[in-house]
Amino acid sequence: MAANNIKSMFGNTVRTIRLSMGISQEELAFLCGLHRTYISDIERGTRNVSLENIAKIARALGVSPKDLFDFPN
Amino acid sequence: MAANNIKSMFGNTVRTIRLSMGISQEELAFLCGLHRTYISDIERGTRNVSLENIAKIARALGVSPKDLFDFPN
Repeated sequence: MAANNIKSMFGNTVRTIRLSMGISQEELAFLCGLHRTYISDIERGTRNVSLENIAKIARALGVSPKDLFDFPN
Repeated sequence: MAANNIKSMFGNTVRTIRLSMGISQEELAFLCGLHRTYISDIERGTRNVSLENIAKIARALGVSPKDLFDFPN
């Protein structure tokens, strides 16, 4: 998996789960305690998100961290 | 999941898979293109590893990124 790819795939997964919850990027950002533009960047695949923020995002989305990696290699 | 916790759980998972392959931290570091002390820190749960390095470690271990998150919340 290209390094670029994991950021895009992760961002797509976050967006898909967020939309399935019917919440905005702003609402997700609030739930995570992160900035809205950071969530926007993550969903666009431009952020090299690290473990602590992966945990925050998973918690806010009500899923396990591993669910955020549920994409093909 | 506490932020501390995800780093420890991730590190434990990396160590378990590495040992099941019968390779040393040094060998894993070489396969990842990362430094041996960085792998050691990851396994001790002190590194906030980000997506690109998660992809490198998964590739070197021959697993999917999601397999590195296969632990309870």
